[in-house]
Amino acid sequence: MFESAEIGHSIDKKTFDAEVPALREALLEAQYELKLQGRFAVLVLICGVEGAGKGETIKLLNEWMDPRLIQVNTFDQQTDEELTRPSAWRYWRQLPPKGRMGIFFGNWYSQMLQSRVHGQIKNAVLDQAIDSAKNLERMLCDEGTLIFKFWFHLSKPQMKARLKALQDDPLHSWRISPLDWLQSKTYDKFVRYGERMLRRSSRDYAPWYVVEGIDPYYRSLTVGRMLLEGLQAALHAQVPRAGSPHAAPLIGSLDHLGLLDSLDMSQSVDKDDYEAQLAGEQARLSGLMRDKRMRKHALVAVFEGNDAAGKGGAIRRVAAALDPRQYRIVPIGAPTEEERAQPYLWRFWRHIPARGKFTVFDRSWYGRVLVERVEEYCQPADWLRAYDEINAFEDQLVEAGVVVVKFWLAIDQDTQLKRFQAREKIPFKRFKITEDDWRNREKWPQYCDAVGDMVDRTSSEVAPWTLVEANDKRFARIKVLRTINEALEAAFADD
Amino acid sequence: MFESAEIGHSIDKKTFDAEVPALREALLEAQYELKLQGRFAVLVLICGVEGAGKGETIKLLNEWMDPRLIQVNTFDQQTDEELTRPSAWRYWRQLPPKGRMGIFFGNWYSQMLQSRVHGQIKNAVLDQAIDSAKNLERMLCDEGTLIFKFWFHLSKPQMKARLKALQDDPLHSWRISPLDWLQSKTYDKFVRYGERMLRRSSRDYAPWYVVEGIDPYYRSLTVGRMLLEGLQAALHAQVPRAGSPHAAPLIGSLDHLGLLDSLDMSQSVDKDDYEAQLAGEQARLSGLMRDKRMRKHALVAVFEGNDAAGKGGAIRRVAAALDPRQYRIVPIGAPTEEERAQPYLWRFWRHIPARGKFTVFDRSWYGRVLVERVEEYCQPADWLRAYDEINAFEDQLVEAGVVVVKFWLAIDQDTQLKRFQAREKIPFKRFKITEDDWRNREKWPQYCDAVGDMVDRTSSEVAPWTLVEANDKRFARIKVLRTINEALEAAFADD
Repeated sequence: MFESAEIGHSIDKKTFDAEVPALREALLEAQYELKLQGRFAVLVLICGVEGAGKGETIKLLNEWMDPRLIQVNTFDQQTDEELTRPSAWRYWRQLPPKGRMGIFFGNWYSQMLQSRVHGQIKNAVLDQAIDSAKNLERMLCDEGTLIFKFWFHLSKPQMKARLKALQDDPLHSWRISPLDWLQSKTYDKFVRYGERMLRRSSRDYAPWYVVEGIDPYYRSLTVGRMLLEGLQAALHAQVPRAGSPHAAPLIGSLDHLGLLDSLDMSQSVDKDDYEAQLAGEQARLSGLMRDKRMRKHALVAVFEGNDAAGKGGAIRRVAAALDPRQYRIVPIGAPTEEERAQPYLWRFWRHIPARGKFTVFDRSWYGRVLVERVEEYCQPADWLRAYDEINAFEDQLVEAGVVVVKFWLAIDQDTQLKRFQAREKIPFKRFKITEDDWRNREKWPQYCDAVGDMVDRTSSEVAPWTLVEANDKRFARIKVLRTINEALEAAFADD
Repeated sequence: MFESAEIGHSIDKKTFDAEVPALREALLEAQYELKLQGRFAVLVLICGVEGAGKGETIKLLNEWMDPRLIQVNTFDQQTDEELTRPSAWRYWRQLPPKGRMGIFFGNWYSQMLQSRVHGQIKNAVLDQAIDSAKNLERMLCDEGTLIFKFWFHLSKPQMKARLKALQDDPLHSWRISPLDWLQSKTYDKFVRYGERMLRRSSRDYAPWYVVEGIDPYYRSLTVGRMLLEGLQAALHAQVPRAGSPHAAPLIGSLDHLGLLDSLDMSQSVDKDDYEAQLAGEQARLSGLMRDKRMRKHALVAVFEGNDAAGKGGAIRRVAAALDPRQYRIVPIGAPTEEERAQPYLWRFWRHIPARGKFTVFDRSWYGRVLVERVEEYCQPADWLRAYDEINAFEDQLVEAGVVVVKFWLAIDQDTQLKRFQAREKIPFKRFKITEDDWRNREKWPQYCDAVGDMVDRTSSEVAPWTLVEANDKRFARIKVLRTINEALEAAFADD
């Protein structure tokens, strides 16, 4: 697929000089329009053969465009903060917000390609990585991001000549490290696996553009024009560019019998038993969190449930087992402005714990398939795709050693009513009851359907849901603690 | 000053159990009120003698209060991302937002005390550190933060007994490292320098509370009550708690002759000279940024100036000299919601470059003493104290090896008018002219006064202002580049 990028494309200086002013002006216009609309972000991924002008082209783009609206990121060595988290964390933390352009050097493609070329992974693992990349990009596109992927190419003789020339140029020689030279030897591998990668990850929503890198005028003008066309098309699109899925929204169970109906809500624990079991499970959790094997893991606990199901109380009993320096509780409410300028999952990625730590999410990314679905805060297409996105997200966590436990605390309608009424009487609990809570209550059946679909679609082997019968608070708290402990022990046993 | 914390305070379990429920309820009320008001953040600093129950007390507080609204931070070893930035950066990034409580273990006090006890610094440097801490806290308070500083104390025999007991307790023994034991030997030093630190840093706006740590009931109830009283007082305060300074606002120069009038605005560079000088200065900057000595430094360039003075163009000429991977341009506009929930300087701290990198601020923290002063977006007290705060901020940058250059690009009123008119005609520049620009123009004299005061008060030896005569864009660009180059060279020469 690189053949047409080895035929010696070139443009003479005169043509170049004549075309640049109009291109620049149009690019600037597009950039300001992008900022003004603030509807989507632009992500540019830069890959390709060494010496093919990647750096120079981006430098020139920065001169043509307004560099204040562009952020360039290189992903070289991981920092220690990055090393203790799932590998995608470093990319998420640098994503450009809506209205801006981010340029990623050394992105996920470079990483997988390097690994394959150096023989650290085989094709099967490369293909897995390509698949993850596609999923990530599909999701970013669905969230509105406009993605450009550029592969800068040189034929083998072109590359050799170019590297030689750069080495001889005292001004440029600093850039050529021995490691880069090595690429000359591994050129064949690099191109072969690169081709595989490009072929398998070029999609309508995030296509690869192969750019011949030998002639600076040709490559700069090519990249500039592609960016411009893509930007203009996206800026003028009447409908969101994101794919409109064919899926029909899920329908509720016709007999109104859901997963939640199968729970035995009468389960309870009496007070004396409770005290003993609670102390036991808390000591167990405390011990597990201090276990040496915890250094290889992190823990993420998700708490969802009916209003007044006792999430707060359960979280407190978990927290009480631990040193406050080990955990962080993240309450999820309305997203902030900075969070709204990013893809949906961004606000959760920013709180993913480092190894050895524990994050409790009090409500979570499941909001999308619960409240956002029921209240119609997002399109059906958005929550329908969220199941896959969430599964992919949790897979990444688990693969990085994060233990993921997810709780749905279920109560019945009578219990909820009693608790609402009781709360309104206790001064320091009255903050917990709002108009919204009463309104949500009226949508009980819709929430039941949403919970059923959520559990069916996101209870995976690696990150299963635990339904917690929470009419009896004591029973619920013990079950929560025990489940966390068992999950940690299972993870340690697998090490 | 620790005498009254060695007299064996204690409270019996019965009294404790009787008092806790009401205290808990009141603390929860206060917490929710804090969140509801969203007016200020609460910062709790924890210090003191080993074994005095710091961890246990905070653990208990987390059980009493709503842990979802508390974030606990420990500052142990710096991460590599923290090591490459000024030392205060790690604290700034963890500051609690308004409406929440942050608890800092191992804060700035622990750090300075450790250094003094281990003989890495002498009293003079300790006193400097204490002074910086006071400045930081004063500023946080002025920004609304409510600060509590707790010193948990034990007498020497109490400490020895306590450490022995903890060692014998299998459940607790994990916490006592050999390093902690060492504190027993250095107890005297620890207490002597601790006393010095407390005496010199206890202020009305951020007092120290010394808590005897031997009896868990006494210490928990004491800390809980202090927090409650402080919180309630702050929540019910009608006026902002921040000190109302006695300073009268600065008055404009009576003869309307300002610093800016002394500039020779006729300076210019002709086109041929410009091309040669520009290429020369850009090559020089490119070389300096690639110099090995740059690894010990970072570069921060601040661009302020009249509207249409050519900040953007100057920034571009600087950027054009560099690889886009080396710099980041941060345009400063209206703060985001997350930024508004933090002290004023927070939004700048988050962009401070790591060593080897370069951040360009297109407008900056000086907004407070320019637009915010002139447009009355903040109180006179706020911008008046900003001069000191900014000086302290820049001192911290410079001390950490950051080279700070600051430009005021000055044009005269005629030139501005011509540029405004010209911009309105060029399509891709029309975004640059807004209603605001025309309005600002009418406040020309007020801006002149503000600029004069700003330069007088914040042009320090370590971070001087450079006034740039910018009627001639070419002259301005060369002067900017040359100034940056000279500043880098001077910094390298000092190494």
